[in-house]
Amino acid sequence: MADKIRVTVWNENVHEKTHEEVRKMYPLGIHGAIAQYLAKQPDLEVRTATLDEPEHGLTESVLVETDVLTWWGHIAHGKVDDKVVARVQKRVLAGMGLIVLHSGHLSKIFRALMGTTGSLKWGAADEKERLWNLEPGHPITAGIGACIELPYEEMYGERFDIPTPDKLIFVSWFEGGAVFRSGCCWERGHGRIFYFQPGHETYPSLHNPEILRVITNAVRWARQRICIESTCVEVKPLEKISAKQM
Amino acid sequence: MADKIRVTVWNENVHEKTHEEVRKMYPLGIHGAIAQYLAKQPDLEVRTATLDEPEHGLTESVLVETDVLTWWGHIAHGKVDDKVVARVQKRVLAGMGLIVLHSGHLSKIFRALMGTTGSLKWGAADEKERLWNLEPGHPITAGIGACIELPYEEMYGERFDIPTPDKLIFVSWFEGGAVFRSGCCWERGHGRIFYFQPGHETYPSLHNPEILRVITNAVRWARQRICIESTCVEVKPLEKISAKQM
Amino acid sequence: MADKIRVTVWNENVHEKTHEEVRKMYPLGIHGAIAQYLAKQPDLEVRTATLDEPEHGLTESVLVETDVLTWWGHIAHGKVDDKVVARVQKRVLAGMGLIVLHSGHLSKIFRALMGTTGSLKWGAADEKERLWNLEPGHPITAGIGACIELPYEEMYGERFDIPTPDKLIFVSWFEGGAVFRSGCCWERGHGRIFYFQPGHETYPSLHNPEILRVITNAVRWARQRICIESTCVEVKPLEKISAKQM
Amino acid sequence: MADKIRVTVWNENVHEKTHEEVRKMYPLGIHGAIAQYLAKQPDLEVRTATLDEPEHGLTESVLVETDVLTWWGHIAHGKVDDKVVARVQKRVLAGMGLIVLHSGHLSKIFRALMGTTGSLKWGAADEKERLWNLEPGHPITAGIGACIELPYEEMYGERFDIPTPDKLIFVSWFEGGAVFRSGCCWERGHGRIFYFQPGHETYPSLHNPEILRVITNAVRWARQRICIESTCVEVKPLEKISAKQM
Repeated sequence: MADKIRVTVWNENVHEKTHEEVRKMYPLGIHGAIAQYLAKQPDLEVRTATLDEPEHGLTESVLVETDVLTWWGHIAHGKVDDKVVARVQKRVLAGMGLIVLHSGHLSKIFRALMGTTGSLKWGAADEKERLWNLEPGHPITAGIGACIELPYEEMYGERFDIPTPDKLIFVSWFEGGAVFRSGCCWERGHGRIFYFQPGHETYPSLHNPEILRVITNAVRWARQRICIESTCVEVKPLEKISAKQM
Repeated sequence: MADKIRVTVWNENVHEKTHEEVRKMYPLGIHGAIAQYLAKQPDLEVRTATLDEPEHGLTESVLVETDVLTWWGHIAHGKVDDKVVARVQKRVLAGMGLIVLHSGHLSKIFRALMGTTGSLKWGAADEKERLWNLEPGHPITAGIGACIELPYEEMYGERFDIPTPDKLIFVSWFEGGAVFRSGCCWERGHGRIFYFQPGHETYPSLHNPEILRVITNAVRWARQRICIESTCVEVKPLEKISAKQM
Repeated sequence: MADKIRVTVWNENVHEKTHEEVRKMYPLGIHGAIAQYLAKQPDLEVRTATLDEPEHGLTESVLVETDVLTWWGHIAHGKVDDKVVARVQKRVLAGMGLIVLHSGHLSKIFRALMGTTGSLKWGAADEKERLWNLEPGHPITAGIGACIELPYEEMYGERFDIPTPDKLIFVSWFEGGAVFRSGCCWERGHGRIFYFQPGHETYPSLHNPEILRVITNAVRWARQRICIESTCVEVKPLEKISAKQM
Repeated sequence: MADKIRVTVWNENVHEKTHEEVRKMYPLGIHGAIAQYLAKQPDLEVRTATLDEPEHGLTESVLVETDVLTWWGHIAHGKVDDKVVARVQKRVLAGMGLIVLHSGHLSKIFRALMGTTGSLKWGAADEKERLWNLEPGHPITAGIGACIELPYEEMYGERFDIPTPDKLIFVSWFEGGAVFRSGCCWERGHGRIFYFQPGHETYPSLHNPEILRVITNAVRWARQRICIESTCVEVKPLEKISAKQM
């Protein structure tokens, strides 16, 4: 456990170029905001990658050196190359951690790993959100109290089309009357996956210390533990087989 | 509950044409053997579909009239059109049941719904198999005792690369020393999925009354309950939102 | 499936005798209100039982003739005889269904089956409640839309100290800012258990047709499927054992 | 994480006094064998406790200083004081880890936490056992290969009457034809629980380095992360409540 956890912070980085409001909110890009915070942690080694880099910055060699990948995408899900998605999925199944943020619920990689549509109700009405902490003993909520309050976030509401989470960490209350399973854990293959709802591009949620603390905790929780690509293997019986007499 | 359950029995139907041994074991094809048994049930309405039919026999109109789809494939997984796989997945998420048999663990549809590789250990050594019934109260094991014994089956062994099943129904013992989670339930979207291990093409497992009974039970358990295609929907707040003051 | 489901509606029936407000709200008792509705269903056969009957009305012979037991208790949990609790638990593990309502989260029987404290946050402030339907395809939500709205209920908030539900059916939004896992399914032994949050004694929730519909659905879902008392059994090996050579 | 994990190794310690065969196999007692191995780990601080000590060696002050408790019991389950069981349960729910070994499946504490009978099939026929590792990435299997082989163990077979495990770590194959879920994880309250099947008193399993490695791993996995006694708390609404108009 002496080695640092190698984190790659991925962002489609489109809104930041086209919307002045987003650029002002996240002058370093959403990836920059997350990476800046993570890089302050002594146990993390952080790099970023974005959509417009070759292979979206997610080459084989980058992924081989990545223990945990965080993912933020929204309007450009369709521009992510299927080959890169397959490569990321393969790595998650082999043991790499994956943290999917906010609108990443519709990303190709999240849908490929879940097998479901990831669809939900949504509304942009500057609603107050409260994320209730259901698992105060879980590593993902270390340092977090009974509830995180955000003055405004995009509303995401049920039904969220996901497989039943292995562990439900946060459930959110929205001012407008909705609820949402806003922090969900799964394991797929040997990899750990955490979906976390906050992070709309026009709100400062990804500057919020509690939200960044949860993401940091999730990175530590999801750190790669082994790296095994599962394949079908033919094996011989370990015990003597009685003769077949059909 | 008065209406019949409409079942489509799908089979790649390749071994039956190329291997004399398989043709002798399943003269009506694997699909024929399953369909013949299911068709005797008064509550089921059964049709078959195979790989070499147009759109593999799984057109939109066939799927719309299918409550439960059973799937047997082995050497031709790669020949199944991705568009048909996407169509079947969409229907499962909307509520259609899916029963995946034996070597279907590597089928595109099973892997798409699970998000994992579906890989496992295997060996063809004419091993005796015992399927232990972990859930005698579950509808899938109605009429089944503590254990089903098969004189020989292909060995499938752990680690089986699947998401943790919602419910584990059977665990198998193999003569050669292996174990396998041989009957597994999941829900994805609104659809129910059952994976069942027996059914190698050179063994008579799909003529075995207990195996056929389990498949029949699984069809009843997985019957379509609703049909809703999940999509993202924008909604207005139900409650008054306090003014934003950033 | 021709036989009727035999339901026993249990109520501690204390508030109804001591609080005028409760007597006016539930003139037949809470058990009476539930039983009256259930008795109108052609597939159900309903009886009631209360705390002050001999053995709380839950004798061996009553339980043997009960497929599903519903439970409402609040201020008299401590007065329920441990022997009766053990008897009910034994029956649930053998296959009887159990529906635990509202303040039953602290009942001896619920805590015995869950293994946890069942504790939660609460507040009586006449809050509006919305129960969001996470599983529109589940039998428990048959006939229920996206959400049930109650003009006022007692607030129950997280963290609810329960084992992770096998299936989470409802999550509630409360006007005052809280959320709650208000409809939860588990299986213990061969029995099915459903916890459902609404039903405070001073509110008309148990006269609400949607709430009564959910309880009715839950009764059908939890109906006894088999009746097996699990005990340890010594068995002989099925296969020949190689000689021990220590 | 600098502090040591404080482990209390509990054993009923009855067979060791009454059966010469057991005394020869475990001259330090079963607790002694486990504690001796654990005490060699630099991150663990180990003590033992047995049935015939006052309060079975599990006083409030011992439990307050215990992060993980391991439990071995067999013929004296009934002699464990209910008050001590309640005290241990309370501590587990508050966050203490619990490792239940072998015949502890019928212990009062395991049954209280599971809510089920813990019953199973069993047979003493000197059978070979193979524990298949389903989760090579899980901390409990660190350093363990695809399978642990024991030349003979007591056979434990399905159906094991337990709630569906949160995570199934080992499934065992027995020479005589049985299978068993031999390594199971749950969380109850804030505590983690691991059941592990090997450890019959007349076999050397608890001297086996792989079995001891798994127990050590499990102790590390189950270490207390927080300590919170869950209780019901009345709270005020966080948001303004609209006036009640019944």
